[in-house]
Amino acid sequence: MLKYLIGIDVGGTNIKVMIMDTGLTVIGKRSFPTSAEDGYDMISDRIITNIDCMLAEKNIDRSSVMYLAMGLPGIVDRKAQKTIYLSKLKWDGFNPAAKLGQYYQVPTAIDNDANINALGEYAFGENGKKDLVLLTLGTGIGGGIIIDGKIFGGSSNIAAEIGHMTINAADDAECMCGKKGHFESYCSGFALRRDSLEMLADFPDSVLHKYIAEADGLYDNSMITRGVTENDELCKEIFDRYIRFFSIGVVNIMHLLNPEIILIGGGISNAGEILLNPLNKMCRQLVIHERAFCPVVRASLGSEAGMYGACVLAAQMTGVYRAGS
Amino acid sequence: MLKYLIGIDVGGTNIKVMIMDTGLTVIGKRSFPTSAEDGYDMISDRIITNIDCMLAEKNIDRSSVMYLAMGLPGIVDRKAQKTIYLSKLKWDGFNPAAKLGQYYQVPTAIDNDANINALGEYAFGENGKKDLVLLTLGTGIGGGIIIDGKIFGGSSNIAAEIGHMTINAADDAECMCGKKGHFESYCSGFALRRDSLEMLADFPDSVLHKYIAEADGLYDNSMITRGVTENDELCKEIFDRYIRFFSIGVVNIMHLLNPEIILIGGGISNAGEILLNPLNKMCRQLVIHERAFCPVVRASLGSEAGMYGACVLAAQMTGVYRAGS
Repeated sequence: MLKYLIGIDVGGTNIKVMIMDTGLTVIGKRSFPTSAEDGYDMISDRIITNIDCMLAEKNIDRSSVMYLAMGLPGIVDRKAQKTIYLSKLKWDGFNPAAKLGQYYQVPTAIDNDANINALGEYAFGENGKKDLVLLTLGTGIGGGIIIDGKIFGGSSNIAAEIGHMTINAADDAECMCGKKGHFESYCSGFALRRDSLEMLADFPDSVLHKYIAEADGLYDNSMITRGVTENDELCKEIFDRYIRFFSIGVVNIMHLLNPEIILIGGGISNAGEILLNPLNKMCRQLVIHERAFCPVVRASLGSEAGMYGACVLAAQMTGVYRAGS
Repeated sequence: MLKYLIGIDVGGTNIKVMIMDTGLTVIGKRSFPTSAEDGYDMISDRIITNIDCMLAEKNIDRSSVMYLAMGLPGIVDRKAQKTIYLSKLKWDGFNPAAKLGQYYQVPTAIDNDANINALGEYAFGENGKKDLVLLTLGTGIGGGIIIDGKIFGGSSNIAAEIGHMTINAADDAECMCGKKGHFESYCSGFALRRDSLEMLADFPDSVLHKYIAEADGLYDNSMITRGVTENDELCKEIFDRYIRFFSIGVVNIMHLLNPEIILIGGGISNAGEILLNPLNKMCRQLVIHERAFCPVVRASLGSEAGMYGACVLAAQMTGVYRAGS
């Protein structure tokens, strides 16, 4: 009888669930709002109801579920299987997968969502390699490290806090964490937006003014790359500075971790080649030896990386999918 | 019949050889000048002669040697078992252990010396942990990473180039590699010396002038910590700045790799608690979560780390010593 794996990606806004069989074929996937204010018990019940519906749809008996893994947005103690700090959900100090594990009578695993996203990109992404780093450029910068096909969590599962790596100690650009000079202080969506809006007044002729007016006064980071393609002076200056700092952070990763590939996901990565071409070029110049360089490319699973990754983690835990394979 | 492992640490100045039995008991050790100008063939013969003497001294037959491992000062392709770039020795593009392997009729392994030092500290150091980072503060800053009791080399064995991590992008302090703002540009022995000598003229009353005169005009980095204990203004300013940059680099390592412990070796580490106390304190302030902090302590094997580490590598390769044990 076929057995099944369940992967759950719990985000602050949406929860995504995927079911795979043990041959790693996707059986079904589903996304629904988290509604964080409902609290843990109600949300858990909602997850269970959704999974039960998905199983019923495919005529799969609940007892065929073999393992369940969950990604969570924050600091997770993987060994103790409990959360340490989830900033938005406030589910701290327990195992949010336990209730589901009891219901389906299966063992469970939890991990940080950035780690699980990286695992998904490794196993199912177009550019997956067994040694990779995934950077997710959202409001902040999320980091996940895969070594030999497994999540690298470090000794207390808080490795890959790449956004909080200091790249510019002397400068005073503030990070969202309150400290200064961090990678995230220069290269997150938040930082790009802050820097762009700050410089706007000094460039009255910039096309950025027009873009913002056309969007009813709402600035968007994608306007910067659009301005670059129109050769706008302000946008080029902002973007060049962005790429300079971004390449510094990325080369630090190359120098410390020497991955096979670095994947970029999240909003800013939609800029595509206009970002990646100059970034790769600058990284090549900054590495101390050509051997340290690795390609920086786009992640390919987008917001689905987490549910893929959670299924892969479940598969690795059961042993049906060997890490590094 | 007992079997034996040979560990060799080839440095630019000295070569160190250690023999262990497969129970990891040290049988003998020896150090002799590299005399790099003699070239590879003559140096290899000298290593063989020294090993043969050590074996003869203990009445060990050459055929009891089981494995031989060698640490080399530069970039090494561990998988292809050949050197890529050894700055001082210029033994590039071949396997410097091959000749010895042929002579003793045993398999061999080579790796970068900083990696092998870290492996030695892991297995034989007072503060060895299975997830550690070793920073060796010499003229430059050497880095070695141990994950789960094994050398972490990354995908092309050039990981742990920690000295070339950019921590201060906006500043123009030059690294020995020619690039700017690197960890090494602020925290190597070279940088400490450069900064101290630069500031000397602005502090005519500093005790540093007296120390240098007493040493026949020869400045030494240890004078800075000596001056700190005498409450000297210049020395305190230099040392505070040094610790500030050092803690930034160290916390970057904590945020990316989350090791159990960070070990500090090399000349500047002799400062001991006067360096380590404020450093640990500042690191605690800089980490984004207490969980990311790990103690920064002194390495304990000094210049012997390499030969211990080479023996451990040999033991791991033969399987008599399990990684992570």
